[in-house]
Amino acid sequence: MIKHPSYLVEPWSIKETSLDFGMMAQCESLFALANGHIGMRGNLDEGEPHALPGTYLNSVYELRPLPYAEAGYGYPASAQSVINVTNGKLIRLLVDDEPFDLRYGQLHRHERVLDLREGVLRRTTLWTSPAGRTVEVRSTRLVSFAYRSIAAIAYEVRPIDGPAQVVVQSELVANEPGPQASDDPRAAAVLEAPLVSEEHAAEDARALLIHRVKRSGLRIGAGMDHVIDGSRSELIGTRSYEDSARTTVTSQLAAGEPLRIVKFLAYGWSSERSQPAIRAQVEAALIAARATGWKGLCDAQREYLDEFWARADVEVEGDDEVQQAVRFGLFHVLQASARAERRPIPAKGLTGPGYDGHAFWDTETFVLPVLAYTNPEASADALRWRYATLPIAQRRAQELHLKGAAFAWRTITGEECSAYWPAGTAAYHINADIADAVIRQLDVTGDADLAREIGVELLVNTARLWMSLGAFDGDGRFHIDGVTGPDEYSAIADNNVYTNLMAQRNLRGAQALVARHPDRARDLEVSTEELREWGRAADAMVVPYDERRGVHPQAERFTDHSPWDFENTPPEHYPLMLYYSYGDLYRTQVVKQADLVLALFLRGDAFTPEEKARDFAYYEGITVRDSSLSACIQSVIAAEVGQLDLAYDYLGEAALMDLADLEHNTRDGVHVASLAGAWIALVSGFGGMRDHNGQLSFAPRLPEALQRLTFRLCWRRQTLHVSFDHESVSYEVREGMPLRILHFGETVDVKPGAPVRLDIPPITAGPRPSQPAGRVPLHREPPQVEPE
Amino acid sequence: MIKHPSYLVEPWSIKETSLDFGMMAQCESLFALANGHIGMRGNLDEGEPHALPGTYLNSVYELRPLPYAEAGYGYPASAQSVINVTNGKLIRLLVDDEPFDLRYGQLHRHERVLDLREGVLRRTTLWTSPAGRTVEVRSTRLVSFAYRSIAAIAYEVRPIDGPAQVVVQSELVANEPGPQASDDPRAAAVLEAPLVSEEHAAEDARALLIHRVKRSGLRIGAGMDHVIDGSRSELIGTRSYEDSARTTVTSQLAAGEPLRIVKFLAYGWSSERSQPAIRAQVEAALIAARATGWKGLCDAQREYLDEFWARADVEVEGDDEVQQAVRFGLFHVLQASARAERRPIPAKGLTGPGYDGHAFWDTETFVLPVLAYTNPEASADALRWRYATLPIAQRRAQELHLKGAAFAWRTITGEECSAYWPAGTAAYHINADIADAVIRQLDVTGDADLAREIGVELLVNTARLWMSLGAFDGDGRFHIDGVTGPDEYSAIADNNVYTNLMAQRNLRGAQALVARHPDRARDLEVSTEELREWGRAADAMVVPYDERRGVHPQAERFTDHSPWDFENTPPEHYPLMLYYSYGDLYRTQVVKQADLVLALFLRGDAFTPEEKARDFAYYEGITVRDSSLSACIQSVIAAEVGQLDLAYDYLGEAALMDLADLEHNTRDGVHVASLAGAWIALVSGFGGMRDHNGQLSFAPRLPEALQRLTFRLCWRRQTLHVSFDHESVSYEVREGMPLRILHFGETVDVKPGAPVRLDIPPITAGPRPSQPAGRVPLHREPPQVEPE
Repeated sequence: MIKHPSYLVEPWSIKETSLDFGMMAQCESLFALANGHIGMRGNLDEGEPHALPGTYLNSVYELRPLPYAEAGYGYPASAQSVINVTNGKLIRLLVDDEPFDLRYGQLHRHERVLDLREGVLRRTTLWTSPAGRTVEVRSTRLVSFAYRSIAAIAYEVRPIDGPAQVVVQSELVANEPGPQASDDPRAAAVLEAPLVSEEHAAEDARALLIHRVKRSGLRIGAGMDHVIDGSRSELIGTRSYEDSARTTVTSQLAAGEPLRIVKFLAYGWSSERSQPAIRAQVEAALIAARATGWKGLCDAQREYLDEFWARADVEVEGDDEVQQAVRFGLFHVLQASARAERRPIPAKGLTGPGYDGHAFWDTETFVLPVLAYTNPEASADALRWRYATLPIAQRRAQELHLKGAAFAWRTITGEECSAYWPAGTAAYHINADIADAVIRQLDVTGDADLAREIGVELLVNTARLWMSLGAFDGDGRFHIDGVTGPDEYSAIADNNVYTNLMAQRNLRGAQALVARHPDRARDLEVSTEELREWGRAADAMVVPYDERRGVHPQAERFTDHSPWDFENTPPEHYPLMLYYSYGDLYRTQVVKQADLVLALFLRGDAFTPEEKARDFAYYEGITVRDSSLSACIQSVIAAEVGQLDLAYDYLGEAALMDLADLEHNTRDGVHVASLAGAWIALVSGFGGMRDHNGQLSFAPRLPEALQRLTFRLCWRRQTLHVSFDHESVSYEVREGMPLRILHFGETVDVKPGAPVRLDIPPITAGPRPSQPAGRVPLHREPPQVEPE
Repeated sequence: MIKHPSYLVEPWSIKETSLDFGMMAQCESLFALANGHIGMRGNLDEGEPHALPGTYLNSVYELRPLPYAEAGYGYPASAQSVINVTNGKLIRLLVDDEPFDLRYGQLHRHERVLDLREGVLRRTTLWTSPAGRTVEVRSTRLVSFAYRSIAAIAYEVRPIDGPAQVVVQSELVANEPGPQASDDPRAAAVLEAPLVSEEHAAEDARALLIHRVKRSGLRIGAGMDHVIDGSRSELIGTRSYEDSARTTVTSQLAAGEPLRIVKFLAYGWSSERSQPAIRAQVEAALIAARATGWKGLCDAQREYLDEFWARADVEVEGDDEVQQAVRFGLFHVLQASARAERRPIPAKGLTGPGYDGHAFWDTETFVLPVLAYTNPEASADALRWRYATLPIAQRRAQELHLKGAAFAWRTITGEECSAYWPAGTAAYHINADIADAVIRQLDVTGDADLAREIGVELLVNTARLWMSLGAFDGDGRFHIDGVTGPDEYSAIADNNVYTNLMAQRNLRGAQALVARHPDRARDLEVSTEELREWGRAADAMVVPYDERRGVHPQAERFTDHSPWDFENTPPEHYPLMLYYSYGDLYRTQVVKQADLVLALFLRGDAFTPEEKARDFAYYEGITVRDSSLSACIQSVIAAEVGQLDLAYDYLGEAALMDLADLEHNTRDGVHVASLAGAWIALVSGFGGMRDHNGQLSFAPRLPEALQRLTFRLCWRRQTLHVSFDHESVSYEVREGMPLRILHFGETVDVKPGAPVRLDIPPITAGPRPSQPAGRVPLHREPPQVEPE
């Protein structure tokens, strides 16, 4: 079993009960709070010690040059990097003139709780200063889901063993020093102090700082205000400087007597709005926050989350750790997306600087499916963000001599930021992934307005890309050559099965949507001839098959390549890309992450059950899971082919990616897609949920270790409840229209208020597929949880 | 016809008769003098105006960092760049206090002649100063083939229309300012002033500067001395500074009275030798130069070249321009290699900073075949240089988890300097190219000592590379996947035909050489089993063939790719790589340079005549010749398949690559491989010379435009003379052993003193193959040369 002794296994919270400086960076990511607009790492209130201080605003970035020793046509000249903006979390404390710093004095008790239902991070510390005075510090931090520009902290200090003179300094700090943000010295220089002061102001207990980001030119405003509650406390006042502001409160406290301060924070930014406009926006938000008050913010937070969990919760009986992990995952997915509102959902959410804050294909392929079924407004907004980048994607397609749109592989604004084209530009599947997410969103919500607003245009532009990237050969077969699929241990291959099948869905989806919205199609000058060509290409799409081995090669010639020498690959040489050249990886049969197996899932309608079983077994033998995007997909297909215990092992890996820091890089932020993957492994894996061609279908089956799984799905403003054990499943719609689903291929109509209970047929699976030497997933047994 | 009006067509010289500032950079390359050790661009004596000032010492480089926006395993961290070392060419002149500068005053006459038999650059200028005094300046510059450390300049100034006070300042200048050496600002900074002064000294008419190169740490010494001949001239003396030294001579000249100065230059450098050692070396060379004297240097130069031309000359009757060009080419090949002596032969020789002064595979594949047959000592030394880099290549192979040696794609010292791995590291064919050059060298010279000294070890190490890079598949076929062949518009493909066939030759050559030197093989621990495996791999080597189209695909699936849209590619979009992404180029059928066609030449023994004709015709239709290495090879195969007029067109392109600046980059240095290619096109093209398996064979045929072609080849210390017209050919050995050759496949013994005259059989060729739209080679007609 995977051990992570610092956190207690609790169904609705993540609790840390001791402070381990070695795990500080990881905890800062796990305990990050965000609402999709503002993100705050779980840094201590007093700022230090820290691993990576971080406060982020979605889409606030700096431009940095991309250096090339040998440049090539179409290489982007610069990239965007998320920056650490003005830090408003800081509340420094002096006790009898000694700084409250956990590195000194004596720490008696430390506890932090991320409460998944309240949406707050609570902290309790009992500490004796080097001079011997013991104080208790309690704080509760909140980034509001209800009010996107607002965060708040309730801070309380209380001397325990005698009177104390305390000074609280609550700050805003810009250009906070931190560890080097890039290995490239030029980029690091750019990112070191990216903010240029434009204005600072202070009055009473409030302050405002306005900065511009040096090269990107974005304007940021950050403000704070305070409510002080302490009988013998005195507001000394607030001072502001170019890069900081400080409100100082002092109090002479008797033993047991608390000083309470509520700090309200407001953020605003814009690429266009003027300094006065930003100032007004931040000041207004602060006034609103103060008016709402701490309790009001907390109530709204709880209400927002209650609604979310009612739609989205997954209940896992038999494995408390997975139960905790899937809720933790859903919470972070929500935090990354809830109020993103036409801004990207980065791979690390707003929890750290990893991947430069870029969004990738995993947004559409891993995160949006979860949101479509649990928070469809958020997935609609994420697609609206992609749509907003369409003009950039069209320009990029033109630059590449292609038609339609070529969306960026990694980006914040829509401009391509990938500097290694074989794993960036060549990974054209991102365009089909976006189309797939559009199709799903429209199927799940039936939102015709969204179709007209963004759907038709996105599908038409991506379909056009495929028609120009691929071509008919002499036999009339449609081939797409020289592309990179999801697996990054292969590149620039011909007819990648995943890419071709997703392009096929893209083309057919575009055809169907155009038929439903002929007027929008006319706007886009889609001709009958063009429509016919899409259909012809989709029908003639090449899907290579290796007759001899009886499996699908991931791409042409893949199965002709030499096997990787797993036996002689030492365990410390993973992830392989850090120890072997791309050349080695590309020319051999070794798979970083599900690629053909992802096609088995997302395009399951294109394979027979026998093909799935054979393909899965084959790729199991060569997949090393050096990507956090792999285990959840392997879990799904393992479950489908009846390898339920293997599916359960992979579920554990996907669910604990960050809580157990399995990839050793949670320090840079949580893996939002892998966290979404825990939901996917449960719902699409054990629940067997599929939505091919807009038809919801289920094939629920539990591994031995679990007793029951219950989940909810939004479908056309209804909520479908699915709950099953080893014998039977119940499908329930509480109100609204009857819902037609497939249960193991049989049509079932679920009527409101009339739960349908059905038997689960048995399945006989073949032998358990084997993994590469040294890459067998950890065998999962439900943890023996001891009560606290 | 290609026009280059500045140069006169003369059989043994290149003559410039007017000064065109717009062509200055190109002329500096064409008029560069070098001996393989020292290189001096054809800058004007007075230094300015210049385009690219340049003085080079073979292998004197600076290290510069290689930046990567996204780094990968095995990417080199830094690269070497050739630097402009201490300039000793400078002789400044003041006439009545006005600087002699061709940008001012009036230029009446300007002539420069590169004399290919004397090995000197002569210059004559008649100029009137802004103040109205007319002077004639004559200079003759020489970089000695006989004395590798020495160069010299005979300088003469003479007032024409009245008396004049002249001051001559002869200089050494280090860290000479020039145009930016790199687009990367960091690299440019490194290369801006790379020399750090260690010592400077001056006495009488001589001076010495010693510098170290900042990062590479190499130590350079440069010295000058002067002999002054002028009745009323006075040596003012010599002063030295950190980065310069100056000898000043003044003279009051009557009209028609000359001042003559001979300037001797000596260079020395070392990575290890001490400052006193370098100083002594340079001073000794200067003393030797002065003792030999100007006439002695000139006599030795002429003697050296007489011997070279006796072995190497090619006589072309019917096309004076090609006649001139092939001699110009041979002269530059000689200049790049003559005294390189275990240092590389860079792609640009020592004529400019192009490609950072790196050597590539073209050394072995284009330059060494010419040298093996015309100056075999130089090709042996070039292979000794590769051998010296073997330990680095073995370390590189280890880093890449391969066996044997992986030689650098581009380098000065042997360390890999390629920052784009798909066109660098993946181009493993360089290892087979080196093996091919070794095999040819041993065949041509029969030099068993060289075989024992370097041959066995080079062939064994490269053979081992192939055995670890490739593998047997389930059917026992040997495949080599994920490599890049010579064509840089494809990359990372499986079973590149050229690579596989050259690897096959490598393996068989290693087997054969090991059999002849079993003791050396034992030293290298070559087992009987290993030998057998080499043979087994060679026999089972995959050579893909497209049955349907009846041609060899360049690599697996190549002919399945879509055609490039040549019709819609505007002429200004060539070279394609500057206007299209690698992705576009890689996934379509467009060929930058002969790849499969190069295999038809170098491994002609592996194809039938019918296959050659079909393959050639196919690849003609998709080859755009964006590389200077293409036309000569196309010329060879065009001639072989009977397309003699097409071959002649390509010959013109190859031969005039630099004289007509066809690729618009002669400014950075001449294309040594393409210049060698003119010889290849004549000797292996029209002469039909092949040397498969060590057997010299001929199939001579002339295009209509030519009347006769005569060439010489060294073979085992003999010289074979071959001379042919349209009807017959004569083979002649003047002394030594009888030589067995093949004439159109028939065995012929050529006995000393008994020329063999044989008829040339007719050939019927198919229709002339067509080239991509807009890429038809210029039709060549022999120029109408007017006498000067």
